Amino acid sequence: MKKLINSPESVLADALAGVAAAHPELAVDVPNRVITRAVRPAAPKVALVSGGGSGHEPLHGGFVGPGMLDAACPGEVFTSPVPDQVLTAARAVDSGAGVLLVVKNYTGDVMNFRLAAELAAEEGIEVRTVLVDDDVAVRDSTWTAGRRGTGATVLVEKIAGALAERGAPLAEVAAVGERVNAASRSFAVALTAATVPAAGKPGFDLPEDEIEVGVGIHGEPGRRREKLRPARELAAEVVDTVLADHDLAAGDEVIALVNGLGGTPLLELYIVFGEVAARLAEHGVTIARSLVGNFVTSLDMAGFSLTLTKADAGLLELWDAPVATPALHRS
Amino acid sequence: MKKLINSPESVLADALAGVAAAHPELAVDVPNRVITRAVRPAAPKVALVSGGGSGHEPLHGGFVGPGMLDAACPGEVFTSPVPDQVLTAARAVDSGAGVLLVVKNYTGDVMNFRLAAELAAEEGIEVRTVLVDDDVAVRDSTWTAGRRGTGATVLVEKIAGALAERGAPLAEVAAVGERVNAASRSFAVALTAATVPAAGKPGFDLPEDEIEVGVGIHGEPGRRREKLRPARELAAEVVDTVLADHDLAAGDEVIALVNGLGGTPLLELYIVFGEVAARLAEHGVTIARSLVGNFVTSLDMAGFSLTLTKADAGLLELWDAPVATPALHRS
Repeated sequence: MKKLINSPESVLADALAGVAAAHPELAVDVPNRVITRAVRPAAPKVALVSGGGSGHEPLHGGFVGPGMLDAACPGEVFTSPVPDQVLTAARAVDSGAGVLLVVKNYTGDVMNFRLAAELAAEEGIEVRTVLVDDDVAVRDSTWTAGRRGTGATVLVEKIAGALAERGAPLAEVAAVGERVNAASRSFAVALTAATVPAAGKPGFDLPEDEIEVGVGIHGEPGRRREKLRPARELAAEVVDTVLADHDLAAGDEVIALVNGLGGTPLLELYIVFGEVAARLAEHGVTIARSLVGNFVTSLDMAGFSLTLTKADAGLLELWDAPVATPALHRS
Repeated sequence: MKKLINSPESVLADALAGVAAAHPELAVDVPNRVITRAVRPAAPKVALVSGGGSGHEPLHGGFVGPGMLDAACPGEVFTSPVPDQVLTAARAVDSGAGVLLVVKNYTGDVMNFRLAAELAAEEGIEVRTVLVDDDVAVRDSTWTAGRRGTGATVLVEKIAGALAERGAPLAEVAAVGERVNAASRSFAVALTAATVPAAGKPGFDLPEDEIEVGVGIHGEPGRRREKLRPARELAAEVVDTVLADHDLAAGDEVIALVNGLGGTPLLELYIVFGEVAARLAEHGVTIARSLVGNFVTSLDMAGFSLTLTKADAGLLELWDAPVATPALHRS
């Protein structure tokens, strides 16, 4: 295993120290593993809290800032944050307007965030949860009941974050988050497996000419293995797979995210994006907005995921709203 | 070789098609391989043109936009753009205020940009060139006379771009670019080699427990190979190596860039940044601004580079100025 770490045990603490050193605009509580904005919002607003296992950076800490999250709770690598951690975050950012928890659909996350929500409610904090389950690859697995949550998390956090920033009440912020999730579908392909530091070796073996189609962001098995093919064919298959589970029709508009899984160069992601755009054009679907890069990663895994979110004017306006976080910024 | 490409021959054209599809704020001339801003600056201003081999994305195309570059000329992978390409870019963006070429110090780039500058001058375009040569690892090599140009390119383009955006004359814009380069030193470490698509295999062999210390962004040999060590030791060595070639003293301020080479997860880059910050603190050097992520990559190479730029109030103010490009954005 070749990694820029001190020891597998200290990965999260050491990375949080680095986030603290690099981002004075964030407040990093290293012992409690909570990242918040250094400057609290001027007026009370619904607070967005997200989290999950580490290893998916910039998710979630990289999305803390005006227009997006109020706090992130990173767990150990590929491990859910604990309930106390989420509770600490909720306490830190609740201004009385309530807290929205954005949770990816994995059994551990669902359980721990639910417990945290109950504890917060007992303290008088109003809590709602949006569960993200956009990955069409598999239904039910060792990690999940139902679909897994992946790339759509970025869109839920951005769009619900924009509405929260405008002072909308908790029910509306939760509703728009659920709407984005319902309008989103994702699918991923891996060229290599990720190596979890504590494991010391790749999570699965993949022959030199094969890919894992429908892989999860923790290296969960996908639908099948097949030979690596040209980007054009692969992108077309991924687009068709996502559309088969979507309610998109010719004439519809989407926000398209071509997301790197951590080990794939940006050059290749742009090639994939070009082929995705070409295939969507064949289906008559218009890309209204796009995002290309590493947003929901799986450590050093090579590969990409595609997320398509059916867009309307309301969602696009919130997508375009200002945001200032380490990983996503627009004015 | 596992890559998301259609064929080694079409990598650049296919990637440019993707950039065009993803970024309506850019104008991509795919046949001529020139990326410009879709919306020209409202008033005449000095135009910044950069370029170099592909495979270093987001450099340079990802830095085209208000506050930074006016045009980028990507060559084939790890291959200089041709003079005609640079000339086409200079013609496209010159508003009469002149053109600043930002060139990384590699023999091919230097030669082709010089020829382009001569051709542009014959057409009456005023041209100045800033040569970036920040890499302290080696002096002279098969690729370069003098030091190689690496991470400082981002700082030169950002800071000179900010001054150009304010309407400063060409001589001043060139001078600040030269000042940033002179104030910058970089050093890189590779954990793995990059695979150039046309070569089909890694550029060099590196045993499972060894790293290349002082590697170049095309996989050029560094100073030596050594065993992989904890991030803390490695970061300290890299900081000390950069400082040994720098004129920084206790009490000085720097802009610190911890740059991923393409295949290293952000989680690890933050661990490195934390250790870099700790070592700089031991030297009494203050990090005034920071940047962590993939900015000057080497395809899928795992590893990182550190760039330290000695900062003063003037440079920091230009560094903080608004910028709106695909890879760097602040308001």
